[in-house]
This record gives sequence, structure tokens and C-alpha cells, in this order.
Amino acid sequence: MDKILDTIDTALPASLERLFAFLRIPSISAQPAHAADCRRAAIWARDTLAEMGFATRLSETKGHPGVIAQNFSAGPAAPHVLFYGHYDVQPADPLELWHSDPFDPQLVDGPRGKRIVARGAVDDKGQVVSFMEAVRAHLAVNGKLPVRLTILLEGEEENGSPSLAELLTNERETLKADFVLVADTNMWNFETPAITTSLRGLAAVDVRLHGPSRDLHSGLFGGIALNPIQTLVSILGQMKDETGRITIPGFYDGVASVSPEQEKAWSGLGFDASAFLGDIGLHHPAGEQGQIPLAQLWARPTAELNGIYGGYQGDGSKTVIPAHATAKLTFRLVAGQDPVKIKEAFERFVSERLPPDARVEFTRGGAAPGYGLAPDAPFLRAAQEALTAEFGKPAALIGCGASIPVVEAFKTILGLETLLAGFGLDDDCIHSPNEKFELACFHRGTRAHARLLSAFAA
Amino acid sequence: MDKILDTIDTALPASLERLFAFLRIPSISAQPAHAADCRRAAIWARDTLAEMGFATRLSETKGHPGVIAQNFSAGPAAPHVLFYGHYDVQPADPLELWHSDPFDPQLVDGPRGKRIVARGAVDDKGQVVSFMEAVRAHLAVNGKLPVRLTILLEGEEENGSPSLAELLTNERETLKADFVLVADTNMWNFETPAITTSLRGLAAVDVRLHGPSRDLHSGLFGGIALNPIQTLVSILGQMKDETGRITIPGFYDGVASVSPEQEKAWSGLGFDASAFLGDIGLHHPAGEQGQIPLAQLWARPTAELNGIYGGYQGDGSKTVIPAHATAKLTFRLVAGQDPVKIKEAFERFVSERLPPDARVEFTRGGAAPGYGLAPDAPFLRAAQEALTAEFGKPAALIGCGASIPVVEAFKTILGLETLLAGFGLDDDCIHSPNEKFELACFHRGTRAHARLLSAFAA
Repeated sequence: MDKILDTIDTALPASLERLFAFLRIPSISAQPAHAADCRRAAIWARDTLAEMGFATRLSETKGHPGVIAQNFSAGPAAPHVLFYGHYDVQPADPLELWHSDPFDPQLVDGPRGKRIVARGAVDDKGQVVSFMEAVRAHLAVNGKLPVRLTILLEGEEENGSPSLAELLTNERETLKADFVLVADTNMWNFETPAITTSLRGLAAVDVRLHGPSRDLHSGLFGGIALNPIQTLVSILGQMKDETGRITIPGFYDGVASVSPEQEKAWSGLGFDASAFLGDIGLHHPAGEQGQIPLAQLWARPTAELNGIYGGYQGDGSKTVIPAHATAKLTFRLVAGQDPVKIKEAFERFVSERLPPDARVEFTRGGAAPGYGLAPDAPFLRAAQEALTAEFGKPAALIGCGASIPVVEAFKTILGLETLLAGFGLDDDCIHSPNEKFELACFHRGTRAHARLLSAFAA
Repeated sequence: MDKILDTIDTALPASLERLFAFLRIPSISAQPAHAADCRRAAIWARDTLAEMGFATRLSETKGHPGVIAQNFSAGPAAPHVLFYGHYDVQPADPLELWHSDPFDPQLVDGPRGKRIVARGAVDDKGQVVSFMEAVRAHLAVNGKLPVRLTILLEGEEENGSPSLAELLTNERETLKADFVLVADTNMWNFETPAITTSLRGLAAVDVRLHGPSRDLHSGLFGGIALNPIQTLVSILGQMKDETGRITIPGFYDGVASVSPEQEKAWSGLGFDASAFLGDIGLHHPAGEQGQIPLAQLWARPTAELNGIYGGYQGDGSKTVIPAHATAKLTFRLVAGQDPVKIKEAFERFVSERLPPDARVEFTRGGAAPGYGLAPDAPFLRAAQEALTAEFGKPAALIGCGASIPVVEAFKTILGLETLLAGFGLDDDCIHSPNEKFELACFHRGTRAHARLLSAFAA
């Protein structure tokens, strides 16, 4: 391993050169004018991996192609790792806020040493090249890899992955690995690596309450006519009790309590809830009482009113009783909850509380279950050891309150678990002007990936 | 009295001719292009009353002038009646839906005999001329009136009466009467006259709940961050209990119960709540349990959500926790409630229920107290007798769930009670195409006004 790490250290300037060549291709997937650039980036990755000894090809879709590369030099007994990344980037505008051309990568000085500045520096070209350079070092030293490796690079991640399901379905046989490694996430902080072991899912429902058949004058009808806004707020107002717990029957079915060990581990991360809330003008965690703030964010499901509307919204008064009122809800779900059952439970909750004459209409939106990596997954233990060896401290096992759709797709279409380990930082300005990747993160990320590859084989 | 009534019957064709001349003037107060027509209508009324022996003048305002006419032939001991009407009319569009020119009045056949069709036929020129013709008959038979009479005709009623307060304030001394008679309301039905003895007032408040300092991603912040929509619905959802009673402390202070006699009288009106609600797609009176439908409409105050908004309102999902959410409320008030105290009580109700970090902002809108005519007002008893004599059945004493701003202005500025007795019908299409006034209503209205004038003097 030392030889491999030395090779990585020595090769850093060459690694950067390769990354910069990749970054110079403006592969903006959302903009049709850059379709050829996206294909150029795919070909660059394909050819680079082919030169390294991978069997490579493009996998065509209705949109930008996927890149598939395989190296099975580890032999048939070795575990099979599927690495996922993406070669497309976000649009760069507003251009005037960049200090340098977003597609002319620069190495500039920052408070933590040099940083790579370019669109895609960290999201996700920098993370992809970091992994590729680890692979290159393994091959340079040993002539083979410790694991069977399939690399899948998507070209539409920044545009909502419209062809991902098609790609995974088409390539189902090729992509039959033991698990997926995704390098598109962040470290806990500059000193502490992180593995994201849980994601919250989503269930979206709109609810419309109908009352009178037309808008009414509140003087001539008020008091006798049902007001659907009042009905809506009366019902939705009962959705949480005073402890912040959601009162929909069955909502928490299948939700595991946060274990004392988990709570202790998260408490040890030094998360500053006051600072986190202070940034958004708040002071008090508003979730379930008795749950620590990180559990409220990562481990507990929510019922969120994302929007509400009905009646008059202009200045002054309009004395109307509207014909209907609407609320838009999403539930953030954790592992163990069934999105369809959650929607049904909510719909039942509303329907059972309808007064006479009120009619309700539901419109179901997206649904994705929450994701939780089993704490005893063998590749998780291996990854923890590798990251600890590189960083001198254990990786933080963290959650994410939001969804990462690709993880859901791997689970649903390929039946695979995903290990989320990346080396970005929260202040990397992804999707924003002056996106950067700390050179130290790129470098240590490469070394960590080299260790991960070996650890997975152990 | 018989002589006077005979005179009215005989003069009907001439009365109609005068009304038609008035109706031909397109005195649309809302449209600046018709400003000269409004003045023409004012002058027509002034000159007509002058010819009848009134001391007349225009009372200029920032907008269209008022018409003031006085006849004190009754002598100083007679009661002083202030008659209020308006000479302006609504715009006539959509013109294509009229069967005849709105300003070329027609006498056409209808299911109840002839009807007068024109813009302003009943609202309010027809009702004004009906009163003037009753006055004319009194003068023709007796050479004098039974009461001291001041006639005030406004020219901006259909445009929100922007100069009414100015007019009443300027003419405060002239208008010092014993009470006001307003002929701008309807009969209970074609057979039954009505006196409106109560109006509901209004108190308007907007409430905005502020949570985080900016819109948040509901995945990354959901569970820990306060959601102001949830806070708003939780609080407003508590505003009514399951019996429909408003739970704001102090809300019902000063509200008189509906007396058994009142309830019996209203029950006797044959109001068909099923038909009333069926017209608007409802079946069940939604107000306070234990109150009859007409009490819910006329005698009980309401808390009405006229509008609500916050967060995302478009198609699909946006996983946002918005920075704020807003509701727009009006309270319909009955006599005995203080609009300012009601607003304060509501604001206290919300403020006392705020969770930590929530901030509330109130915007107060219009306020007007409810109005109730004392059941023992002497002019009310006189009016009941006069109407019973004309129609052969007692007048229905009814309420109105909405406000009539001019009544509030008479009370506030002049300190006068108002007797609301008019001869329109609910199907007269006021403000709509083909506005009409049943000839029988015009005729009986004139006879009833003649009886009222005598009754007030008795």
C-alpha cells in the first residue's frame, strides 16, 4: 500500500493535468448547445480508462451516453465493485460572478492551501478523477486491481437523470456488482471523512378541499356556508401534536428508534445546532421533542406543508368564501416506511375528518422510500478502516435528510446497496460560481480511494 | 289616505313617465366619461323636487354632487324624516346580454305582470321615484306633508361612496333628522314586504407567520426548521370548535342571544335552507350548532378565512419550507361587538399560541360595527302598521348578513338610526343585464311610501 500511496503522491502533478483536461470540456448536460461537449467528455473518460487497461464503451440512451468501463484483473473470486460518478456539470452562469473562466481550471491559493477552481472541480469530475488516479496507481504498482471493478459514468445527473433508469435497465447484466461506491458527497469537515449511511425518501400529496360550488360573498353566505379554507386548516392543524410528533395513525410504523449508540455517535460529531439554525434565523429545533437535532434531520420522518393556497391573496380585503383550498405536502421518509402506505394513511386521516358537504381531492406526486445502509454491511466496515487509516480518525457515519435519486435507482433497478463516500466540503460552492475542490481533498481523496480498493478485497 | 292612494293609482302613467325620463340619463358614477350625465341626473332630481315645492340645491363634493331637498310644510312639531337614495347607477356592460338598450327603459311583460326594464330600474332610481311620487300625491291632496322631510340623494353609491363622509359632514346641520329612511333594499318576496332591522359589521385582519429567514430545502432542513405554514394552520385550526363556535376568548362578548320570539318569527318566514344551500352545492348549515339557519346568517358573528397563501402553488412538488405564510380574515360582527376589540382578541389568540421562533405580523383592514335597530323604535312600529295596511300581511323583520356602509355612516356621522324598507325583489338583476323593477312593486311601493309618511306622523 505504501508504494501505491507514494505513486499517488509523486503523480499528483500529472493527475491534476488529467483532471484539468477533463474540466476544460464544458459538458453542461442541461443545455442542448453543449450536447457535443457532453459526448466529448464521455469519450475523454472512455479513452482515458481504455488507456489504463479497462474494457470500455459508451452506452447510448435517449439523452447523453453513459460510459462503462470494466477491469476484472482481480480475478473471479474478488468482490465486484460498481463505481458511479457523472461527467456532466451544472451551467456556469452567472458568469460575471466567476473570478476566472469556469472552463479554464486554475490552481489558486486559499485558506487551506491550494484549491482547484472550475465548474465541475468537485461535482463530480474532481471526485471521478480522484478515484481514477487511485485505480491508476494500483495498476502501476501491481499490474492489477484488488477488486473486480465496473465504472459507470452518467452524463445527465445535473439535469435530473432522465435516462438513468433506461441506462441501468439496459446494462443490468453488466452492472451486477456486490455493491455501489458513489463519490459525489462531502466529508464531515476538512479533517473528518464521512460515510453517508442513510437518506430520507419522499412521498408527495396535494390535497384540495372543495366546499361550495362557487366563490361566495362572505356577508350573504357567511355563517351558514362551509368555508373550505377553515376545513383545510382545521384538519392539517391536527397533523402534529404539541410535542412535534405526527399524529397520522400508522405514520411511524416500521420506523426504528435512534439507538443510544447512534445518538451518542452523532452527539460526538460536534454539530452546532445553534449555528445551523442561526444561519436561517431560527434558534430552536422544531422537530419531535426528545430527539437530538441530527436525529430530527436525518433519522426522523417529517410531514411538511410546502405550499398552501385558497381564496383571495391580494392587498386589502375581499369578503369571499372560496369554492376550494389546496395544500401541497411532502413527507420525508426513513427506512422502514412505505411511501404508498404513508400517502394512504394521510388521505385516510383527512377523509375521516371531513365535515358534511366537504369534498376532498388528492393528487399523488413522487414517491421514494428512505434508505438505510445496514450497519453491519462488510464493505462499510472495510471502508471505515480505510478512511481511518488515511485520515487518522474514524469516518463520521452520517445521514442526509434529503434523497439522492441514484441510490434509490441502484436499489430498485439493480438491487444493490450503495456506499456513499466522497471528499467534497460543504463550502465547495457546487452549482454556484467559483466552484472549487481543495487540492488536499483531491489528493487525500485519491489516497483514500486507493486504500478503499484494497480494503474491499480484504 | 284613500284620496292619496287614489291619486297615486290614477297618476301611475305619469309617474312612470317621470321615472323613464330619470332612467334615460346614463348616470354611471364609476366611469369618468359619464361625469356630466351624473350631474344631469342630479339636476333632474333637484329640479323635479323644486317643482314639487321643495327647497333644493346641489351639495358639491370632490366627486359627484349630492342633491338636498327639504319640505317643512308639516310644521315644526312634526317628526323630521331624512330620506336617502342614490341617483347613480352601475355600468351596464356586458351590453350584448341586454334585450333592450339599458338606458331606453321599456315596460315588458313578465310572469308577475308588467316590469320596468332599464339600468337603475330598481337600484335605485325606481325606488327613489316611487318615494317621490308618494310625496307628490300627499302634496296634491293636502298641499302639505305629514312629516318634515329632507331628501338626500347621493351620486356615488355604486362606486363605493368615496365622498359620502364628506357630504354628511358638510351637511350635518341640514341633515339633523329623527331617523333615516332608506329605500334601497328588497321585499321578503313578491307578497311580503320587509324591514331590515340588523346588519352585520366587519373587522378585517391579515396575519402573516414568519419562520426561517429564507425559503429552505425541506430535505436538508425539514424536521429541525419551523414551518410557518404548519404553525399558521395549527393556530387557525383551533379557531372553531366542533360545534362551529368560535373559540377566540371574548369573541362573543356583548352578543345577544337570539330570543325565542325572534327565532319563532324567522322560522315563520318559510326560509328554505335546503334550497338556499342547494344553489351553492351544499346541504348542511355549517354555522354554530343550535342556531337556526337564518340566525347563522343574520344574528351570529363569523370568523371567515377569505384567503390563505404560502410556499409553492404550482404543479408538481417543490420541496420547500417557506419563510412565511399568510391568511386573510374577516369577522362578520353583530350589534354589541366592538370591531377593534375583536381584532385585538384575534391577535392575542394567535400571539399566545406562537411556538418559539415564530414571529407574527398583523395588518388591520376595515372595521365597522354591526347594526341593530331597537325593536321598540317608534318609527319601526309605525312602518310595520303602514306596510301591513298596504300588503295585507305584516312586514317581515329580517336581517342582512352583510354591511350597508351608508347605514354605518348615518350612525357614525349623524348619530341617526336607519329604517331600511324597500320594494325590490331578489330576482331584480341589480348590477346585472336586464335589471328590472316589477311594475306592481313600483306601484305598491309608492302606495306604501304614502302610508309610511302618514304613519310616521301619527
